[in-house]
Amino acid sequence: MSSVKRLAIVGVGLIGGSLARALKNAGFVDEVVGNGRNEATLQRARELGVIDRYELDPVAAVEGADMVVVCVPMGAMRSVLGAVRPGLSANAVVTDAGSAKGSVVRDLEAAFGETPDFFVPGHPIAGTERSGVEASFGELYRHRRVILTPLPETRPDAVARVRAMWEAAGADVVEMGVEHHDEILAATSHLPHMLAFGLVDTLSRWESAGEIFEFAAGGFRDFTRIASSDPVMWRDICIANRGALLHALQRYRDDLDGLIAMVERGDAESIEKLFRDAKTTRDRFVERLENRQKGEQA
Amino acid sequence: MSSVKRLAIVGVGLIGGSLARALKNAGFVDEVVGNGRNEATLQRARELGVIDRYELDPVAAVEGADMVVVCVPMGAMRSVLGAVRPGLSANAVVTDAGSAKGSVVRDLEAAFGETPDFFVPGHPIAGTERSGVEASFGELYRHRRVILTPLPETRPDAVARVRAMWEAAGADVVEMGVEHHDEILAATSHLPHMLAFGLVDTLSRWESAGEIFEFAAGGFRDFTRIASSDPVMWRDICIANRGALLHALQRYRDDLDGLIAMVERGDAESIEKLFRDAKTTRDRFVERLENRQKGEQA
Repeated sequence: MSSVKRLAIVGVGLIGGSLARALKNAGFVDEVVGNGRNEATLQRARELGVIDRYELDPVAAVEGADMVVVCVPMGAMRSVLGAVRPGLSANAVVTDAGSAKGSVVRDLEAAFGETPDFFVPGHPIAGTERSGVEASFGELYRHRRVILTPLPETRPDAVARVRAMWEAAGADVVEMGVEHHDEILAATSHLPHMLAFGLVDTLSRWESAGEIFEFAAGGFRDFTRIASSDPVMWRDICIANRGALLHALQRYRDDLDGLIAMVERGDAESIEKLFRDAKTTRDRFVERLENRQKGEQA
Repeated sequence: MSSVKRLAIVGVGLIGGSLARALKNAGFVDEVVGNGRNEATLQRARELGVIDRYELDPVAAVEGADMVVVCVPMGAMRSVLGAVRPGLSANAVVTDAGSAKGSVVRDLEAAFGETPDFFVPGHPIAGTERSGVEASFGELYRHRRVILTPLPETRPDAVARVRAMWEAAGADVVEMGVEHHDEILAATSHLPHMLAFGLVDTLSRWESAGEIFEFAAGGFRDFTRIASSDPVMWRDICIANRGALLHALQRYRDDLDGLIAMVERGDAESIEKLFRDAKTTRDRFVERLENRQKGEQA
């Protein structure tokens, strides 16, 4: 399998840093060059051995790289793509790690004036509520999903090279369409983040907010874990995946109205059925997830 | 401190079983008698050493007990209180572990025809999404909060004995009014459970539900952990704490409408502020919770 000679990571945080670590551990990459706005972060990444060297200039950072991975907040995608463009080698394949893909395709067209055949939109379904290169670790992608959403223009060999890279990092790679990706991620990831941020916000403005957080316990901690995620990253995801997210939010709100009505009329039977079905679905989901993450067939 | 000579646990599941284990470990109780509807469960509880013996008849179960703890779903509270009543000793103190307290007070009045002075409404803020005596463990209440909501009629010595019991199990005991308890628990516990059950329900009825759960990951697993809770217990909580829960649900729904409007108009600044404030609040909450659960001063 073709390994990577020079990997450029644009945005060396949890996602980019963990990828670099995984590929180094796997012996899949000869050299990793980091780029980002914050030199202290890049210095730290080099000290940690996540990258071999860094370039503050985006053009210099991608020069001679056969693989470029852009791991920046979605709101910075367009300008970053424009900034690296002049430095790209003829044999470079470029991919990203953004949580929404429709907006990346639009950014791509804006930055390149066309849809380049060497760009493979990608999204690793992995992460923690922590961010930054200090939080990165080489096992982040092990048995995790990576979704690639190649476009009609995308060269098959570019897709194959990005796939091989993620597989070397331990991930299971699947392909799907851009819109389908954005719908599914809105439902499984973006919507729950909104609900968790929203709950903490609601409670923090309650009259007895102090006591509320005093008596909140483990269930609340787990429910709101994702509300400790990076605010800028999530702001950008809201904007980038606005259409699909709005659809999911409205759908949830309508269903919530239904549940509120059940509670209002004291409809114990419907409430129990809803809870029972949800528990069954959730228990089955967790069982499959855990099997998959142990590396067993799902 | 006065220990318990004979403890009757009515409903030997996670909550009652863990209390019995903790008090045995602490040497705070001489004998534990179990009662419940399911004899196989009671046999298992005896095998596990959680109880010393069991009685299927509620009257026989509480006879001679100086402490009776009722740990049944809220929907069974009234009939269980009525069933044990004829067996209670003159020196018995009775308490419960229900997640809402207003309804327990109403059940109490219905079952006893008055508000007995020996009943101390209580609520241990502890649990897991698992249930049943097999899931019980003696450390469940260690550094966890127990809220007691004594009534004007409640004898202070009864409160003191229940407090001493929970403290022997490792808990931190606080007292507050019934309504205040129900408002706070609606916000921190009952509302998040509704949102988690509701999300799983919404997604399970999505057209691409199969794929949605296929690509859901760790954030979703944690967010929905509480949707694996016992459906009957939570149905009963919805009914028992309907007023306060409805208030919390409507408030959340109104705030969610506000967030939806922000996404709709692409208001990045307001979205980021909401996320940033929520993250700050949530990070601070977790820090305090973890300090408290390590036994440090909050």
